[in-house]
Amino acid sequence: MEKNWANANELWADVIAETLFRKGVSYAITCPGSRSSPLTFAFARHEQIEAIPVLDERSAGFFALGIAKRSGKPVVLLCTSGSAVANFFPAVVEASESGVPLLLLTADRPPELQDCSAGQTIDQRKFFSRYVRKEVELAVPEANLGLLRYLRQTVSHCADFASVLHRGPVHVNVPFRDPLIPLEQEGFSSPIEPSAFGAFFDHLEPTDGLPLLQAELPDSISSLRKGMIVVGAVSPVNEDTWCENVASFAHRLGWPLISDALNPIRSHANFFESLICGYESILRNGELAIELIPEHVIVIGSLPTSKSLRNWLSGLDVAMTILHDRPVNLDATHSRATQVFADFEFGGVPVSDGNAADYANRWLDLDLQVAAEFESRFAATDSLFEGKLAWTLAKLLPEGSSLCVSNSMPPRDMEFYFGRSNLGVSVFSSRGANGIDGILSTALGVAHEAERTFLLTGDLALLHDTNGALIAKELKGSLTILLVNNSGGGIFEMLPVSKFDDVFEKHYGTDQRVDFSNWSKTYGIDYELIGSWPKLEEKLAEPSEGVRVLELRTDRKLDAALRKQWFAEISGLLL
Amino acid sequence: MEKNWANANELWADVIAETLFRKGVSYAITCPGSRSSPLTFAFARHEQIEAIPVLDERSAGFFALGIAKRSGKPVVLLCTSGSAVANFFPAVVEASESGVPLLLLTADRPPELQDCSAGQTIDQRKFFSRYVRKEVELAVPEANLGLLRYLRQTVSHCADFASVLHRGPVHVNVPFRDPLIPLEQEGFSSPIEPSAFGAFFDHLEPTDGLPLLQAELPDSISSLRKGMIVVGAVSPVNEDTWCENVASFAHRLGWPLISDALNPIRSHANFFESLICGYESILRNGELAIELIPEHVIVIGSLPTSKSLRNWLSGLDVAMTILHDRPVNLDATHSRATQVFADFEFGGVPVSDGNAADYANRWLDLDLQVAAEFESRFAATDSLFEGKLAWTLAKLLPEGSSLCVSNSMPPRDMEFYFGRSNLGVSVFSSRGANGIDGILSTALGVAHEAERTFLLTGDLALLHDTNGALIAKELKGSLTILLVNNSGGGIFEMLPVSKFDDVFEKHYGTDQRVDFSNWSKTYGIDYELIGSWPKLEEKLAEPSEGVRVLELRTDRKLDAALRKQWFAEISGLLL
Repeated sequence: MEKNWANANELWADVIAETLFRKGVSYAITCPGSRSSPLTFAFARHEQIEAIPVLDERSAGFFALGIAKRSGKPVVLLCTSGSAVANFFPAVVEASESGVPLLLLTADRPPELQDCSAGQTIDQRKFFSRYVRKEVELAVPEANLGLLRYLRQTVSHCADFASVLHRGPVHVNVPFRDPLIPLEQEGFSSPIEPSAFGAFFDHLEPTDGLPLLQAELPDSISSLRKGMIVVGAVSPVNEDTWCENVASFAHRLGWPLISDALNPIRSHANFFESLICGYESILRNGELAIELIPEHVIVIGSLPTSKSLRNWLSGLDVAMTILHDRPVNLDATHSRATQVFADFEFGGVPVSDGNAADYANRWLDLDLQVAAEFESRFAATDSLFEGKLAWTLAKLLPEGSSLCVSNSMPPRDMEFYFGRSNLGVSVFSSRGANGIDGILSTALGVAHEAERTFLLTGDLALLHDTNGALIAKELKGSLTILLVNNSGGGIFEMLPVSKFDDVFEKHYGTDQRVDFSNWSKTYGIDYELIGSWPKLEEKLAEPSEGVRVLELRTDRKLDAALRKQWFAEISGLLL
Repeated sequence: MEKNWANANELWADVIAETLFRKGVSYAITCPGSRSSPLTFAFARHEQIEAIPVLDERSAGFFALGIAKRSGKPVVLLCTSGSAVANFFPAVVEASESGVPLLLLTADRPPELQDCSAGQTIDQRKFFSRYVRKEVELAVPEANLGLLRYLRQTVSHCADFASVLHRGPVHVNVPFRDPLIPLEQEGFSSPIEPSAFGAFFDHLEPTDGLPLLQAELPDSISSLRKGMIVVGAVSPVNEDTWCENVASFAHRLGWPLISDALNPIRSHANFFESLICGYESILRNGELAIELIPEHVIVIGSLPTSKSLRNWLSGLDVAMTILHDRPVNLDATHSRATQVFADFEFGGVPVSDGNAADYANRWLDLDLQVAAEFESRFAATDSLFEGKLAWTLAKLLPEGSSLCVSNSMPPRDMEFYFGRSNLGVSVFSSRGANGIDGILSTALGVAHEAERTFLLTGDLALLHDTNGALIAKELKGSLTILLVNNSGGGIFEMLPVSKFDDVFEKHYGTDQRVDFSNWSKTYGIDYELIGSWPKLEEKLAEPSEGVRVLELRTDRKLDAALRKQWFAEISGLLL
């Protein structure tokens, strides 16, 4: 890149872009605006960074989040001054809670235009308070070598800070004076020769991956007879390595591995000896809940969603070890837990003496009973029961594809019904703040320049992020939206609130009466109504490009009743 | 209201709702969620408060903002815990910047479920930092008379705080333990008898209106020969009183009144003697800009948007008096300004000795020349020039209707071309943070249970708030969306950035290629493409119910050129 800069702002923004490129940034999401022009130009013109324009800053934030989730690398998120910044907040909250690296570059007016009712100016300092790991306000640009060094080092440090240890969003507020675009500025002269520009960044390297800490566990656990490993939502960047590590860990201890569906385990089933998926049904059986009480629980990543599991653990007052690489309090059960700060590289794990084999086999046996029950019940189900979708996906998703799971009911259905396979599906979820916001945009980010991607979502979550559909035309890749349309808040149908008719339908059911065929057409998205399971199978097998919607119209009242009925029946059958 | 409460949460939430009702709250916007159930039930079941469910908290926030803007009274905005809260932020920023009373009630988990990865739980304390006037975290509900008194008094105080003096948003964080819905709770007994419930609130009265402060101005200004009054964006609740006050003030001084279009003045033209609308054309004439230099400027509310006017004032170093009732720094020109804290009740204004008559007449004469030029040019314009829409609306809007003006290009076109009339149109704008977010939802709030309302907006702003369209089915009233579709960022076409082809169309033009006929259909909204000015006249005259879109497809490149050409021509013609 050899350039003749027209003014200090252009040079300044180029230093920011080039620094971030050297630190491993490949994507910048740009939201339209005037004050951010120097940054927009720098990223749009950078030959090795893809700059993608997104109108709505809220969707832009989640799109960046999706790309960063998949890649594990920081993504730049760029906007103009004013309320644009506030629209980033929902994605910043999710990134903070789930530890996803984002670099927020928010343009601002310089100090002399602050707090005097200049247009589109609000106080952007410390805007995201505790939801960013670090916040920096840069100096107003000047063409001065000392300041350019300061700039390079500050921006480079922010990229590191977002990426390692307690990783997450970092906010850089960037004031600019006029001229905002590359117009020649009287008296400007660059202190760096264009030919020396590249060398100015020669010492910068992409931020190293996460440090792999070694977890040390007490020897005493190797002789326990009843120990279990529990794994919740995790989306590791290197899935195979991660699965191997978890599998080897479980193998050494010989303990059963209770895994949520929101991590790669269930679709890398051949890695694992004692994988348990049916714990919801098992623990709803009161006798089994007593028989299976463990002596020790090791949690990897986070606890699964299941209320049955959480309540059971919460009642046990059992010793628990939580393995996690970020300093996050993960124990909502308030048990006797200790946290070991470690990634999923488990050196020093004591090898069990085989004492736990009976316990593991008991779990496995029960799990096989549950799986067999689901197998026969789902095979006999022709109706569009929501639960069958998760069950079907475990069997029919293309090998190596990605599945994004929305919040509210989908993670529950996944946890209940998404069974084991060897399809190597990558599962992504937004379990930081568990919001139904930004779901479509996040999935588009996961799908961008990646494997075929699927999104399992309800109608309300999809509508909440309709503006994500404006990103569809920028997608390089394939996203299939599996829309479970039950006309409203399906999850509330599972709760006792559904009995209060005077308030329920209006304030909880919230049927939006949107025709999704029309909705899809508005954004140039392909659409198909799926009326039967064979039709779904056919569509899943089809190659696809771009974004498409496959809509299943379901009945939330019937389905809520069926879930409850099956759990009662199956947990009652177990021996 | 006589009730038998089932548990402490239900009683607690009823005390909140009844307190707020007594303090003048008539509307609660409820966003679906589980943790907020006690509040949802209390507001939904309150007979004198209208509870309106809105799916997307971002739109809900702006809808509440619109209702509060129109009524001047605080509106309740209610959501569950987690990222829902973050979605309120854009509306909170605008409410804070423009001084609109909102009462945010955000449900939360109790302390023992904080910061331990319990689902949908984030740290909500001090969430909106400096963008709320006050933030309170309530105690966890208990059925205890002392605590209920504390609750009543705290909530009442928050309603006052949001409504008076430096009014704006107030955040009340409300933790709840289970049970969240009205299920009988063992051991619960209400310390207030159902029959005594009403009396518990007997001392509460709606918060008084804004105090009318008396502005004292120095006697010396009455003898000045060149003084001008400048009025920017203001949406007073009592327009006639406000207009009378401003008119009487201007009359006493005998000064010309330079008024933006974003207040009621231009469509209450008969109130004013020396109203000037054409200042953009006048001040672009270099000779006139010197001839018209004032000795003193009085600003009411805020400065108009016009960059020509602001730059002119900024260059003058002239004495300026700013009248505003909130402690906001309004002087982006950095002039010799002093601020007088006063509402628009101007006692003690010295009566001028007539010295300023020549100056006022000179302005008036120039303004008539500008108006005559526009009159003949627009009359001869058959093409769908964007500027003609603002000019047409000043003539054809129904008497007493409301006009909401989006941000970006519409306020400029209004300022340039919306002429004087006696139609008594109320004009609403979002000039706090000047964002293009939440525009549709705000307009729906203004329209709810009010006069016929119109929204003038570009395509990008409308798309940014597509989820506002989900509120359409809740609207009681009439909103006509006047959609100026120029396929993207029209305002940037007015700026020098439009010359940089490699970056411009993708990152600034941001054409979204949405078919608005289809967009409207998705949300059950009537739609009509307006191909000619007579067609528009016909549609404006029609009675209408609910929401409809009238789309004008314009050419942003041609229109940007025409605006510039006309200003150059007209300012050159003035004598």
